[in-house]
Amino acid sequence: MEVTRRNFKESLNAVCSALEEADFLAIDGEFSGISDGPNVSALTNGLDTPEERYTKLKKHSMDFVLFQFGLCTFTYNQAKSKYITKTFNFYIFPKPFNRTSPDIKFICQSSSIDFLASQGFDFNKVFCHGIPYLNQDEEAQLRKQTEERRNQHANGVGTPSYISPSSSKGPAHVPDEHKDFIERVIQKVDSLFTSSEKTVDLEPCTGFQRKLIYQTLNWKFPKGLHVETIETEKKERYIQVSRVDDDERKRREQQKLEREQEELNDAVGFSRVIHAISKSGKLVVGHNMLLDVMHTIHQFYCPLPEKSSESVSFLSRSAQHSFSGSFLTPPKSYISARSKLIEPFHNK
Amino acid sequence: MEVTRRNFKESLNAVCSALEEADFLAIDGEFSGISDGPNVSALTNGLDTPEERYTKLKKHSMDFVLFQFGLCTFTYNQAKSKYITKTFNFYIFPKPFNRTSPDIKFICQSSSIDFLASQGFDFNKVFCHGIPYLNQDEEAQLRKQTEERRNQHANGVGTPSYISPSSSKGPAHVPDEHKDFIERVIQKVDSLFTSSEKTVDLEPCTGFQRKLIYQTLNWKFPKGLHVETIETEKKERYIQVSRVDDDERKRREQQKLEREQEELNDAVGFSRVIHAISKSGKLVVGHNMLLDVMHTIHQFYCPLPEKSSESVSFLSRSAQHSFSGSFLTPPKSYISARSKLIEPFHNK
Repeated sequence: MEVTRRNFKESLNAVCSALEEADFLAIDGEFSGISDGPNVSALTNGLDTPEERYTKLKKHSMDFVLFQFGLCTFTYNQAKSKYITKTFNFYIFPKPFNRTSPDIKFICQSSSIDFLASQGFDFNKVFCHGIPYLNQDEEAQLRKQTEERRNQHANGVGTPSYISPSSSKGPAHVPDEHKDFIERVIQKVDSLFTSSEKTVDLEPCTGFQRKLIYQTLNWKFPKGLHVETIETEKKERYIQVSRVDDDERKRREQQKLEREQEELNDAVGFSRVIHAISKSGKLVVGHNMLLDVMHTIHQFYCPLPEKSSESVSFLSRSAQHSFSGSFLTPPKSYISARSKLIEPFHNK
Repeated sequence: MEVTRRNFKESLNAVCSALEEADFLAIDGEFSGISDGPNVSALTNGLDTPEERYTKLKKHSMDFVLFQFGLCTFTYNQAKSKYITKTFNFYIFPKPFNRTSPDIKFICQSSSIDFLASQGFDFNKVFCHGIPYLNQDEEAQLRKQTEERRNQHANGVGTPSYISPSSSKGPAHVPDEHKDFIERVIQKVDSLFTSSEKTVDLEPCTGFQRKLIYQTLNWKFPKGLHVETIETEKKERYIQVSRVDDDERKRREQQKLEREQEELNDAVGFSRVIHAISKSGKLVVGHNMLLDVMHTIHQFYCPLPEKSSESVSFLSRSAQHSFSGSFLTPPKSYISARSKLIEPFHNK
């Protein structure tokens, strides 16, 4: 099953159920590159100690991004004596949450991109529809900001969607070249009070013009309006003005806060899958999995510790048990319990 | 007209004709990002001197990649009193030429990628079908290598596609676990001499096995064979063995060298368009064009000079005359000579 930003929310329950019922899990990541320094064979020299490998990968691989995460759950079916598998293929992209959130930069390595292209990889699914994510710090910070805004609202301090921080109580100073524009806006909004329409969408305009509109409307119509900036899919911003009574206005503010809360959960995005894997405590297997695990921690949890030993104890805390294994291409919908593929994972 | 690796060669003549007949040109680039340090508005502060802007962009923008290059040619038609425009939209990607050529790493900035995605940008066209390019140094180095190989061939030193540098005159040492495999290869090749088939494709195998095959065949069949490694679109390598007489063998070697020469021209790729623009000496206009010009020099010519003054004199040598202008979206197929758009470029 392919999972992008478009179907992530509706797929999350299926992912969590699959994790819950699974006996063990397999993961595999695709990256925008492998090494920003030594060539790949030097980076993954078979004679390195685990510590050496960890140190090299930490130094040379972490500025690339994990942009596809494959998850396969294995559940043993007694009646059929078979493992039932469920596969999920997540496309991931660090889409900025808003204009003030971190603007992630990541490296692409031409040979890796070219290899993925030759295998039919769909880059549009990553860059246009990739699921966003936040690490623990980013999530905590955003939740704090939202909480503060919610408290301000509960205490009646301002109506956040309406009063801009820079709005004053007096009339806004409107530069000459914008006077006609603002005059037309006032007429449009005025007409709301004499027509049956309850809402008017103003035309898209610049940030400065939006500031003038907020200031002017705040001063001209201190009550009876709900004013909100809407951003289209194409990143155009326009202002929507609605005629509301006091109850309606409060209800809308409440709705807006709830929407913000939901947007915040959306922003945590794919990290929720990683949290669920960690929480499941299930065995996770993978091929050459150190790099996948390091990217997973780095991208969805926190900066990597200096030493791999700390990382390993972190891993066991996070229930990221790692064993080497290899699985079939293309994925099979079931694998017999007597399959040689499973043998290395039997308790002996 | 959209131009990718798939139709680049057949489009090149049309591009060159358009450049030749044009009165002036307009260009615009799309990049994988803008700034790896200060935010974009600080980077393009309107109060900066040209020198300051140049220094900032050189420091913070050159690790991104120009991956789409828009070219519009304007030709004045006296009879119609109109400018006739031709537009070309090139998708560009630094696909590595071969396994030993530079493996370019470039940065992507999430907000830039997200903006392009919101505008319907097709990333697959860049990463899967982008036209490759070489800067002047890379091109010179590759041409030298090819020339050396050609000279070796002309002097009869080796038959490059056949004798591996590490091949010896004695029988190859074949490790036990590969003996069956090599035995089967010998039987297959042997059968070429008793069948009507002239060519046999061996199954894909590892680099080490290919080395064993080359060494074994070189020793077992010193004459009468042409052996070549073929790489599929999916990056799988297999060996093709053909039964040939001496003339045929020479003809094939010659063909191979010619193919290499053509591949080399393909590798210079999009840089040929930039060379043609430079050679045309035509006026080039663009909006906020310093960044486009800097990326163009950096990516398709040579490292940027320390000072913008050197860059400007380089530019004028390269006939990259730069003026600010702005053009319509979507592109128009003609613009009247009396259009206000053209006015800023009139000689006054």
